[in-house]
Amino acid sequence: MADGEGGGAVRFGIIRCAAIACTFFRAIKLAPNATLVAIASRSLSKAEAFKSSNGVEDSVTLYGDYESLLNDLSVDAVYIPLPTSFHVKWAVAAVEKKKHVLLEKPTAMNVAELDVIIQACEVNGVQFMDGTMWIHHRRTDKMKEFISDPSLFGELKTVHSNFTYPPDSNFLANNIRLNPNLDGLGALGDIGWYCIRSILWATDYKLPNSVVANRNPTFTDAGVLLSCGASLIWNNGLIATFHCSMQAQSSMDLCVIGTRGIIHVNDFVTPFDETVASFNVCSNSRFTEPIIGWQRPLPREEVVQMEIPQEARMVVEFSKLVAGVRDEHRSPEMKWVAITRKTQLVVDAVLASIENEFKSVDVHQG
Amino acid sequence: MADGEGGGAVRFGIIRCAAIACTFFRAIKLAPNATLVAIASRSLSKAEAFKSSNGVEDSVTLYGDYESLLNDLSVDAVYIPLPTSFHVKWAVAAVEKKKHVLLEKPTAMNVAELDVIIQACEVNGVQFMDGTMWIHHRRTDKMKEFISDPSLFGELKTVHSNFTYPPDSNFLANNIRLNPNLDGLGALGDIGWYCIRSILWATDYKLPNSVVANRNPTFTDAGVLLSCGASLIWNNGLIATFHCSMQAQSSMDLCVIGTRGIIHVNDFVTPFDETVASFNVCSNSRFTEPIIGWQRPLPREEVVQMEIPQEARMVVEFSKLVAGVRDEHRSPEMKWVAITRKTQLVVDAVLASIENEFKSVDVHQG
Repeated sequence: MADGEGGGAVRFGIIRCAAIACTFFRAIKLAPNATLVAIASRSLSKAEAFKSSNGVEDSVTLYGDYESLLNDLSVDAVYIPLPTSFHVKWAVAAVEKKKHVLLEKPTAMNVAELDVIIQACEVNGVQFMDGTMWIHHRRTDKMKEFISDPSLFGELKTVHSNFTYPPDSNFLANNIRLNPNLDGLGALGDIGWYCIRSILWATDYKLPNSVVANRNPTFTDAGVLLSCGASLIWNNGLIATFHCSMQAQSSMDLCVIGTRGIIHVNDFVTPFDETVASFNVCSNSRFTEPIIGWQRPLPREEVVQMEIPQEARMVVEFSKLVAGVRDEHRSPEMKWVAITRKTQLVVDAVLASIENEFKSVDVHQG
Repeated sequence: MADGEGGGAVRFGIIRCAAIACTFFRAIKLAPNATLVAIASRSLSKAEAFKSSNGVEDSVTLYGDYESLLNDLSVDAVYIPLPTSFHVKWAVAAVEKKKHVLLEKPTAMNVAELDVIIQACEVNGVQFMDGTMWIHHRRTDKMKEFISDPSLFGELKTVHSNFTYPPDSNFLANNIRLNPNLDGLGALGDIGWYCIRSILWATDYKLPNSVVANRNPTFTDAGVLLSCGASLIWNNGLIATFHCSMQAQSSMDLCVIGTRGIIHVNDFVTPFDETVASFNVCSNSRFTEPIIGWQRPLPREEVVQMEIPQEARMVVEFSKLVAGVRDEHRSPEMKWVAITRKTQLVVDAVLASIENEFKSVDVHQG
């Protein structure tokens, strides 16, 4: 669906043939307003291997270095799944070439780095979005409708989120997510990011006032976080907690409790199934008296059908915004920058609390 | 089923016609080895009202004060659902009359009080158990089987538990659970107790080394806890968190995560239904690569049928132990004392952390 003259599909380049790039490659194919035009790896042979194993079309240009892709004028936007340590360098380089940027999470090692990227986007007038896919699922929209309904959900009181998965020994030894020089945020950046995002999502992106990390996080021998958690505190009485770990059975749990309603979902980041997803809700339920059961209504399952998976919806949303900038001279949508930055601010605060003997850390509100 | 000569059903007296006493009354009727012989209230008219509204048999003696019931030689054991502040006085009084004691939770205002009760039980050779009913559900046994299986569950890594419910305005103004002179532990004693018990249950009752209360608990005007939470820390890297609140929609969530398996249950304290209960388990599941879903096996529901409800099973278990002491001169089963005491120790530690600016509080191991 490429259109060399503009006005057509947004033309993507992928910078690094990471595992997640396979998911993204398929997402572009499923998004009607996006097309892939280039793939770059640090060596041409890696790009060719990616092409071969993923069935990439011959029309897609392969590059053996990242700069060449950024110099390709047929590329409107880049997807960057590089190790976190390289984000600021390559996102800024892309932005300076007027490429719109879809940047994998965690977006930066800290908010100071992220601000360099954001500022470059502003200066160059390009669209920014991070690669948090579940936010774009239709189920997420449906859950938001529920928790936005005062009669069904009431006022938000607490959130708890888990994201855990069990690594194999090869992962622990070799995965970049545990290399202090590549992804120094470890489990906090890789999966805690999603927990924090889910909590912010539930609060309509109201930053907590303070964060306290849970004691006894675990680390690799190289000092990278394997597991951690925290409580997030708002001055209005709201509290949220999360736990993330690369040392436990797979879980992706989100529990959002209001004064009148509750949501439970156990696959919030990656739904069990791509075509249909569900969540459990309950509203205005009480226990019976005498306390031998629950009054009706009991929790019920809300089922959501999907035409295209969440990552394709992300590409559609991002491409729509990019096309607006490219074809209609609209300003970039800043909502996504704000959401990313708040997530990174909380990541930073959790890390600061861990590094400061689990003391309470104020979250910068600006 | 009363048997005045001993050897038959254990003969219960109920001390206080509390709302939960209705549940307990029914439980005795459902338990084949227990029978109700006496009910005491602070006034005879209240006892008569309880008799009338619950269909208590004419054979049951009604008392207008507690002492008279304790002096009734036909009573083997007492169920005490008094406000917590009165537990030590009346539990000790009962024990000194050689009554076996089934004591509602929270068992005492603190472990020092509880130890007075426990010591009295030891001196008088009577059986003690607290009124935590869900521990006796068949589902609880089935869940324990799952988490005890190394191949299905592996090593325990983390637990999270919620218990919340929405009070009406009458509750907030008048319920004894919020009266500082009656149930000064508030939400922590009323429902946090269950969360703490669930965590200890998952660890095979291994006490945490330390406890840190979450910031911003909420209180009534009289200073009684309406909501709070904490993280429990073990030196081996295990961490557990809980949140309890009387200001949010009903939830009774327990999530237990091991290296290989996971349990989710959303009605752990009071099952939605009395005759059939379930929990979700997942073992050895991973995400697909590329990450677009979950490999099989997906979480599955384990269904447990119930012949009698959990509170009746509690009465059966307690009565079996009482009969062993009464009829076979066995020693009282000390397991239940130990479980109660550990729960109370953690309750105390959470409260100490709240009162000590959310500092980490070491948990006494003895």
